[in-house]
Amino acid sequence: MEIKIIQEKLAKALGAVSRVAAGTKASLPILNNVLIRVDDNKVSLTTTNLDMAVVSYLPATQCKNGVITVPARLMAEFVSNLPRGEVVNIVSKDDKVEIRAGEYSSIINGASAEGFPELPEIEDDKAVKFQMGVDEFKAGLSQVMIAASSDMTRPALTGVYFNTFEGALYLAATDGYRLAERKFIDKVQSEVAAIVPTVSLQEVLRSISDDVEEIEILFDEAQVRFRLGEIEVTSKLIDGSFPDYRQLIPKQTEINLELKRDELVRITKLAALFAKEVGGSIVCESSVEKGGFSVASVANELGENNSSIKVKVEADGKVTLNSRFLLDALNVLNDKEVEFGFSNKLDPVVLRDKKSTEYVHIIMPLKG
Amino acid sequence: MEIKIIQEKLAKALGAVSRVAAGTKASLPILNNVLIRVDDNKVSLTTTNLDMAVVSYLPATQCKNGVITVPARLMAEFVSNLPRGEVVNIVSKDDKVEIRAGEYSSIINGASAEGFPELPEIEDDKAVKFQMGVDEFKAGLSQVMIAASSDMTRPALTGVYFNTFEGALYLAATDGYRLAERKFIDKVQSEVAAIVPTVSLQEVLRSISDDVEEIEILFDEAQVRFRLGEIEVTSKLIDGSFPDYRQLIPKQTEINLELKRDELVRITKLAALFAKEVGGSIVCESSVEKGGFSVASVANELGENNSSIKVKVEADGKVTLNSRFLLDALNVLNDKEVEFGFSNKLDPVVLRDKKSTEYVHIIMPLKG
Repeated sequence: MEIKIIQEKLAKALGAVSRVAAGTKASLPILNNVLIRVDDNKVSLTTTNLDMAVVSYLPATQCKNGVITVPARLMAEFVSNLPRGEVVNIVSKDDKVEIRAGEYSSIINGASAEGFPELPEIEDDKAVKFQMGVDEFKAGLSQVMIAASSDMTRPALTGVYFNTFEGALYLAATDGYRLAERKFIDKVQSEVAAIVPTVSLQEVLRSISDDVEEIEILFDEAQVRFRLGEIEVTSKLIDGSFPDYRQLIPKQTEINLELKRDELVRITKLAALFAKEVGGSIVCESSVEKGGFSVASVANELGENNSSIKVKVEADGKVTLNSRFLLDALNVLNDKEVEFGFSNKLDPVVLRDKKSTEYVHIIMPLKG
Repeated sequence: MEIKIIQEKLAKALGAVSRVAAGTKASLPILNNVLIRVDDNKVSLTTTNLDMAVVSYLPATQCKNGVITVPARLMAEFVSNLPRGEVVNIVSKDDKVEIRAGEYSSIINGASAEGFPELPEIEDDKAVKFQMGVDEFKAGLSQVMIAASSDMTRPALTGVYFNTFEGALYLAATDGYRLAERKFIDKVQSEVAAIVPTVSLQEVLRSISDDVEEIEILFDEAQVRFRLGEIEVTSKLIDGSFPDYRQLIPKQTEINLELKRDELVRITKLAALFAKEVGGSIVCESSVEKGGFSVASVANELGENNSSIKVKVEADGKVTLNSRFLLDALNVLNDKEVEFGFSNKLDPVVLRDKKSTEYVHIIMPLKG
């Protein structure tokens, strides 16, 4: 195997795949390695942790076919420290790789590709496919992911649920205390209902580089693949059933306020400072008499706090929330004004951007 | 006590002092608090962890004299979340503080100032004083601090040694494996020999804001005070004797190379990647025959690495170093070219900027 390639391109591609290589704690040592494959002037770099694989394709000339694996992080760090603009020459000999660039040379001990586990292929013509702009996907996915659980005892909740409903593609996540849903594509030809692990999606987000405009998503029965220009992230799906979440989103709420987002963030943060001893519990209250909406900590050991926003209020209401969940939600909303809807103490709070209906965020109240 | 003050100034001053307030783990709960004192329209905010104190002075009008303590971080976070440009009104009542700013109000539970420990005063007219530009101090101190030890069993080595010698002020630090010394002021009137804790100096560096141009340093027998505009950091000195370090700096070395700093950094990093399994040991070698200077890892389990710099070499030599120490030193040198001087395997390596003689960095070799 032989490759000649400019330093910047190789460093970027190695950087993209080396994160997934499992580090020295891997049960299977070869998972620390990157698989380098040359096949008719096409170079591919692959890493996997068995749940997920990342492949980076590289254009290269003057190659000789072959395949080998070498420690991914050592290779990535070595190449990234070589001078920019140099041509890097990689030659495999038995289970070693020789790297040369100008005055610099090294031999890295690798291992035969035989022991390297590759994820099963996704057959392009049998897969369910979706395509969308990368900016929309990135922004929308980030809005949804924050509601996913990190509790591994309920695996279905640790992922994001890609599902089609009435001809549109939706992404949803919930940890049982809050729920986020975003609509993506209005008219889809295919149907899907699949849970993608959040860790894989984080890797997808990290793999998006500035020069990529479109993302292609392919599902088969057990896997999903995200195509981002020269990078492909493939992940196993989570085997489980996602809750029937649509019934949890209230059709309407009794009290609906339009609040300036930055003001709501500020009074929530101020109240949260006093709520540390009670796990962040805050009371949100609308009062016709006071002509406003206020947020206060339910605790008073540290002191007392009450901050309000002057706003048109048509009914009195009160709900207790976890301040962190409210701040998380406000943080992923985009508009200057947000809709804050609630009913009684036990019904979910509904948050939306004022100008857009694509995203909805639900927070379950705490018992006040 | 009453203060009226613009939000930005109060937030900045609270931010500067609240780092030192010890957090909830303090053995003495009042150390979590900031002491707020108003005395004839002079406002001061003080925090201490018993080893070190930070005071921030604030200009304010419409004040009423008084003194109280309140939890520093809560107060700092509360004020920093208030809107910019608002006038913040602080009034103490018994052991509570009421804070108002526009629509926002809160009461923070505090404690009487009686239990608050203050460091002893440094008497201005009896203190030994030095004064210098803040940029020079900041840059030079950072060059020296990296050589200090973090081993608390040898307290004298965990500080920076401020000492006068032949009419100049020097700062020095050593952890027994490396040593850094920088000359500061050429003609000093006073003498000093004092060890200042590195943790206090880190606080001093963090307290330097862009609008401060001069630093004043005052020593008495047991303490040091750094005056930085409106902020004063006072610290206990370390009680102990600093090694007689000047004798450790070689007067001359046998092989003296002038190397490009970025090239030396690069080949050291490349070799260090292969040296992880041997604690970062690398061999630096000058060879007349090869016409250059090379760095290689002493380990070869991961592979082999040898990178060289073409440079005029007048003698063969070899020395084994810890790559991290060499990179640390190169990182604080400033010139494009550095002097790398060494003698035999066991003598210290001497590093300097080519154009400046104020700073010297010594690294003890490893047994090769």
